[in-house]
Amino acid sequence: MQSYLNSAQPAHGGNLTWAASLAGCSPFSLVDFSASINPLGPPTGAIAAIQSNWEQLRHYPDPEYRALRQALANAHCLHPDWILPGNGAAELLTWAGRDLSGLEQTTILTPGFGDYFRALRTFGGHWLGVPLEVAHPPSSLPISLPVLPLPSELHPHGLLLNNPHNPTGWLFMRESLRPYLETHERVVVDEAFMDFLGNDPAESVVDWVQDFPNLVVVRSLTKFYSLPGLRLGYAIAHPDTLRRWQRWRDPWSVNSMAEVAAIAALADPAFQQRTWDWLPDARSRLWAGLTAIPGLQPLVSAANFLLVRAEASVPLLQQRLLQEHQILIRDCMSFAELGDRYFRVAVRTLEENQRLLTALHAVLSSLHPGAHGC
Amino acid sequence: MQSYLNSAQPAHGGNLTWAASLAGCSPFSLVDFSASINPLGPPTGAIAAIQSNWEQLRHYPDPEYRALRQALANAHCLHPDWILPGNGAAELLTWAGRDLSGLEQTTILTPGFGDYFRALRTFGGHWLGVPLEVAHPPSSLPISLPVLPLPSELHPHGLLLNNPHNPTGWLFMRESLRPYLETHERVVVDEAFMDFLGNDPAESVVDWVQDFPNLVVVRSLTKFYSLPGLRLGYAIAHPDTLRRWQRWRDPWSVNSMAEVAAIAALADPAFQQRTWDWLPDARSRLWAGLTAIPGLQPLVSAANFLLVRAEASVPLLQQRLLQEHQILIRDCMSFAELGDRYFRVAVRTLEENQRLLTALHAVLSSLHPGAHGC
Repeated sequence: MQSYLNSAQPAHGGNLTWAASLAGCSPFSLVDFSASINPLGPPTGAIAAIQSNWEQLRHYPDPEYRALRQALANAHCLHPDWILPGNGAAELLTWAGRDLSGLEQTTILTPGFGDYFRALRTFGGHWLGVPLEVAHPPSSLPISLPVLPLPSELHPHGLLLNNPHNPTGWLFMRESLRPYLETHERVVVDEAFMDFLGNDPAESVVDWVQDFPNLVVVRSLTKFYSLPGLRLGYAIAHPDTLRRWQRWRDPWSVNSMAEVAAIAALADPAFQQRTWDWLPDARSRLWAGLTAIPGLQPLVSAANFLLVRAEASVPLLQQRLLQEHQILIRDCMSFAELGDRYFRVAVRTLEENQRLLTALHAVLSSLHPGAHGC
Repeated sequence: MQSYLNSAQPAHGGNLTWAASLAGCSPFSLVDFSASINPLGPPTGAIAAIQSNWEQLRHYPDPEYRALRQALANAHCLHPDWILPGNGAAELLTWAGRDLSGLEQTTILTPGFGDYFRALRTFGGHWLGVPLEVAHPPSSLPISLPVLPLPSELHPHGLLLNNPHNPTGWLFMRESLRPYLETHERVVVDEAFMDFLGNDPAESVVDWVQDFPNLVVVRSLTKFYSLPGLRLGYAIAHPDTLRRWQRWRDPWSVNSMAEVAAIAALADPAFQQRTWDWLPDARSRLWAGLTAIPGLQPLVSAANFLLVRAEASVPLLQQRLLQEHQILIRDCMSFAELGDRYFRVAVRTLEENQRLLTALHAVLSSLHPGAHGC
């Protein structure tokens, strides 16, 4: 198992301390394409909410998080008992991992988000990886889930997947997931990037939660609202599941600043609309720009990031982009199935995306001057 | 097991939402004596650090928390590998509870902090309560630990205690703890209130950590620096223990605002000195004031709170103080050994402490006009 302490190469995107030491600059001088964060945020109302609530720092958070749960419940037309806020979606994955680890095995699509394996390892859980055909990507989305192995009655299985999928950006049709809600003991759908698809996205399974007590949906607020430093995610599931998780964890898992910022952000439909207006156009331009660079093949994506196949070695490309352009891309070395020929980039502003394209072109041309001359 | 969701009576101090609904006022109009938070803070530098680091909200925290671990390591003259920051001390208790739950049983002094039992229950741990003689309190501190049962070689035991102890405020001589470091497989000392005792307090066991790989010290930053809303604690222990905990939990457990605020607070010796100058005098005046009220007997305390025995029923007293004086005290109903005749109050400013004394006198006089007339 990998230790996060003293690890040289980060296992996740957004590790600016590591990148800045390589680039020889301040962490915040970098343009970070490695973490898939909305470049339009955070909403000004979220910062204003923190600034007008300093008093709350001096007090413990409400352990029942009534105000936040009510705001999230309103957003999903649910009762607050069906919502549990967490210290980032990652904290909730810990407890999802504990539930899943009690089963015979959990099916995970590979390549898969590294934190899923961490959460299962923590509790000695077993998993079965079902590979996505990254080498033969779809030309349009949504697609059906691959066919997953079925459990026997004596050996209950779990299923843990994200939709849209990270790192591919693929969107799965929810109807292709539905049969597994009947066959699997517990299904955890990480919709950390689903809010980028618009209001009430068609493939979200949030509205199935009340029909399937074995379904847990995990959502993030910090990617869409650009607040990953604050840590805030939430789970939507049957209250029995959420009460169990809450008994397991400590009483004050979400900090007060995250609570007030999230409530303010949720009340900002103009910010949400700006994001939904920006993404499709910015993503398709970035996709087209990447396609036009010899040696790069971006995969089609429904999310706010693109997975890109490169003919060049990605660690070298990453290093050159850092040192010569202060640009950080996400290598995919921590995804065993992808190795050193894939990288992932967030969709950022049109200007930043153009800066990335220019830098990629410059570095790749210098790596293979013969191939990319003229 | 108790659910925090929908629980009517809070199991911890500082639950202002619940109290404000009883008092019929805004949560921040209350004077909160129920949570033991330094009334002098937060240090202005901590707030300034947040205000000058908004940019960090847009980025994931450094999963290795290098800057924060270095600042904490400097404060204790240790290498950063011996420090692990947590999302409040309570998050670290979760992982301590997991370690302890692998042992035959864990000894806990009773009455004991409710979150210890939560952390052990989470992982199916067993505990043995060793009662403190609260009905026969010491007249001065520090005192020796009570004699604890010894494990056999085949049945390794854990020990989980706090020093100073909560809710009594008693300080234990560290020499009386030392034998148990030889006999117990794992010893967790929660020093959440130790920093109130001054720089390098004599009874802290932090400097034993390098000699005893089975010792874990848990510290809080949010009580002394008045930042409980931000959530920040840390563990000091052998790096093998801390790496294990870090593999178990999610990578970004501490939020960026807590990190920058803590680094600024640790660099503020004037705030620390003001706190050390304020506490002994304010505590002894509050103790004397409580002693002078008929029907109340405060226990001697080394911490920033006092446990008080009352002849009156505490839930009624608590309710009257809330409704008539907007003052919140901590009833001790969640400590089975204390029942309805004890309450705990934080030491606050001289003015606030006087307001508490006046309110207690008024309420108790009206409850027992015969006894407290004249």
